[in-house]
Amino acid sequence: MKDLKNYIESNKDRFLEELFELIRIPSISSKEEHKDDMYKAAEWIKNKLTDDGAENAEVISTEGHPVVYADKILDPSLPTVLVYGHYDVQPVEPLELWKSKPFEPEIRDGKIWARGADDDKGQMYMHFKAFEYLNSTNQLPCNVKFMIEGEEEIGSPNLGKFCQANEDKLKCDVILVSDTAMIAKDVPSITTGLRGLSYVEVKLTGPNRDLHSGLFGGAVANPINILCEMISSLTDENNKITIDGFYDDVIEIPQNERAEMAKAPFSLENYKKALDIEDVHGEKGFSTIERTGIRPSLDVNGIWGGHTDKGAKTVLPSEAYAKISMRLVPNQDSQKITELFEKHFTAIAPKSVKVEVDFLHGGEGYSAPSDTSEFQAASKAFEDTFGKKAIPVKSGGSIPIISLFEKVLGVKSILMGFGLESDAIHSPNENYPVDNFLKGIETIPYFYKHYSEMKK
Amino acid sequence: MKDLKNYIESNKDRFLEELFELIRIPSISSKEEHKDDMYKAAEWIKNKLTDDGAENAEVISTEGHPVVYADKILDPSLPTVLVYGHYDVQPVEPLELWKSKPFEPEIRDGKIWARGADDDKGQMYMHFKAFEYLNSTNQLPCNVKFMIEGEEEIGSPNLGKFCQANEDKLKCDVILVSDTAMIAKDVPSITTGLRGLSYVEVKLTGPNRDLHSGLFGGAVANPINILCEMISSLTDENNKITIDGFYDDVIEIPQNERAEMAKAPFSLENYKKALDIEDVHGEKGFSTIERTGIRPSLDVNGIWGGHTDKGAKTVLPSEAYAKISMRLVPNQDSQKITELFEKHFTAIAPKSVKVEVDFLHGGEGYSAPSDTSEFQAASKAFEDTFGKKAIPVKSGGSIPIISLFEKVLGVKSILMGFGLESDAIHSPNENYPVDNFLKGIETIPYFYKHYSEMKK
Repeated sequence: MKDLKNYIESNKDRFLEELFELIRIPSISSKEEHKDDMYKAAEWIKNKLTDDGAENAEVISTEGHPVVYADKILDPSLPTVLVYGHYDVQPVEPLELWKSKPFEPEIRDGKIWARGADDDKGQMYMHFKAFEYLNSTNQLPCNVKFMIEGEEEIGSPNLGKFCQANEDKLKCDVILVSDTAMIAKDVPSITTGLRGLSYVEVKLTGPNRDLHSGLFGGAVANPINILCEMISSLTDENNKITIDGFYDDVIEIPQNERAEMAKAPFSLENYKKALDIEDVHGEKGFSTIERTGIRPSLDVNGIWGGHTDKGAKTVLPSEAYAKISMRLVPNQDSQKITELFEKHFTAIAPKSVKVEVDFLHGGEGYSAPSDTSEFQAASKAFEDTFGKKAIPVKSGGSIPIISLFEKVLGVKSILMGFGLESDAIHSPNENYPVDNFLKGIETIPYFYKHYSEMKK
Repeated sequence: MKDLKNYIESNKDRFLEELFELIRIPSISSKEEHKDDMYKAAEWIKNKLTDDGAENAEVISTEGHPVVYADKILDPSLPTVLVYGHYDVQPVEPLELWKSKPFEPEIRDGKIWARGADDDKGQMYMHFKAFEYLNSTNQLPCNVKFMIEGEEEIGSPNLGKFCQANEDKLKCDVILVSDTAMIAKDVPSITTGLRGLSYVEVKLTGPNRDLHSGLFGGAVANPINILCEMISSLTDENNKITIDGFYDDVIEIPQNERAEMAKAPFSLENYKKALDIEDVHGEKGFSTIERTGIRPSLDVNGIWGGHTDKGAKTVLPSEAYAKISMRLVPNQDSQKITELFEKHFTAIAPKSVKVEVDFLHGGEGYSAPSDTSEFQAASKAFEDTFGKKAIPVKSGGSIPIISLFEKVLGVKSILMGFGLESDAIHSPNENYPVDNFLKGIETIPYFYKHYSEMKK
């Protein structure tokens, strides 16, 4: 790659300035009040892709937030790489925990601090700049398409339809995505598995109004107490999920594969230290890496009810709520799991409360083999720039759209992530090391090179 | 009582207008921002008691909100009744459930709708007007003292000290309180028991920051899940509280007394209908009346953690909180129970989380015999105005100060309540039937009369 390092070195301040412009648009997809920001971000991306040399750039409306498409078709006979990314970000609460404002990016200690710094504005933007380099230096070895959506953080509810409606336009040989993490700083990895997701909200109603906890306490079901009992019963003493049929489609990973996974560099001590916990907690019989990589899980993502303000209000509340999500392994069907959950949760409720279960979002897991050209190309690219082989890892996260791409477009994805676990994505103080951002821009062109050569 | 009914009839509009003035002062004791309103309410009461004929009225500062004192001493040899009430009210959230504004009292369907309409501004104010009548018509048969506090809803943290410091000033033969409910409309009752209270706030900390529930879910303890498990384990399958030693000081009520309690008019069908619940829920082996009257209970009054806003944020939160209160029966010591709770709750926490338990407030239960002059006087007074005998009942509520009065001042209290269970105290749409308000003003003078005659 001619002058790649020099190109990055002499342009890096501009790269960061451009990324900061995008980060400053508070494109929180889950919040109605940011609807205009979604369009603003999409327009910005369309213009930037055009500036970077892409053609046919357009902002395409969906029933939700728009998708940005652009491409550079050199020759239909060349292989085509479709770059997927997302410009939407997670909410930023609790705001008081941020050390700098989430939408006013700052560089401190060599890291970019802002919502979206990593997930996914920072990682997505590496692709724009890698493309800019290849295109402006006439080194682009293949066709490139961009599909940048604005609803990843809310489960990509409209991207399936979009892919179906635009199947021809999106035709490609592989989908390239940077929305995952490396196993550790300077230890490149390729994500070969993702978990699926079923995310619900439950509501329990006890008495028809808030009651005085003295006059009624002990005689009337308190929906918070009942909700706690019901949630507690969803896992057993071995931290296995008790929902009937939950594990039916979970494929047990063979011992040799588990032994292979165990070779990945991982220090339980460092993990606990980084999180300031005395002990980890999970399904009996599985290691920490296995618990997120090859096993499903159930987490309460939010809970609320009764008096949550200061002081000691003696209320026996009428209602209690929780948001509960289950991470699923590839062979589990998210819709089936949602149905099993609803059935089970309704069945375990005592007669003294009413239960509602609302589906919020979901998606399927994904599994990618390591014997494909894209895996080999990505692996070589990492070796070119990091000087070491990438480690295949199964991530605990979910990118539901990856399995949808396979289903709708019939194409596998290659997940080249440059994030770090310490990037605090979805949390206050999200950050992304400038080094990782630049290393990504440096590595991506090698993927294009190796992949195109292999596909010749 | 000369012209009592006429007096009430011809003054009732003024009585209500005066009460409304007091209700309009939003004297929420638990909220710092209402500090000035507390003084405003106290001043209003001082002036009103003076208008009504009391002497020596003063607003007395404490470390918290002030106490109002006033008296009318006819002759030191006469018996002295001390009227206790409170001018502070509960918070009003959730505001959206109120049909009219909480501090803008309205009369609809024969009821006063407002925060404090019953608890305790409405019930307290009956005493002012009963006193006004007796004093202005020269029929006061005994000495009267008033002690009106502003911290009942936050556990009267400074009234114990106040009583100790003012022992001489507060010297009396009996304390008269209207801060409880009648068993049903037109069924007068005298509260012969109150429950004690231990109210704590707990905080669980898992990882040191909010985590992505995909990348970490299943491997790191989620403090909400753990909190639910811990809360759930506080009661067993018979809804008995599992805290070690919790029942040690609970006195089992003999079967004959329970049989007597069972005679009180109570319809389980109506109870369930009024609350719109399919079933009641409580300690096995006890009736609904017993569950609140003679048995302790444990309620979560509030719970919060993680993402409680709209949408599906996939967070594994760092912290989870709950407010938990236990209602205690007379022989249980609230401080001991708080200590048992803290010890137990800390002990059951897994190593994967950190636990904090903060004491918010507490107080002792109370038991009043029915063979005293005050009980007989109250009973006769009810008979005079309702035409039927009052039923002795054990209330599930707590007025911690009542047991403190006995301890510090050595005086028993008589609890003549005129509220109804449907008054929704501590809830949105608190209300108080105008009839009950007026009936209270009519009944109280008879108590003074009978009590003074008995004490002669």
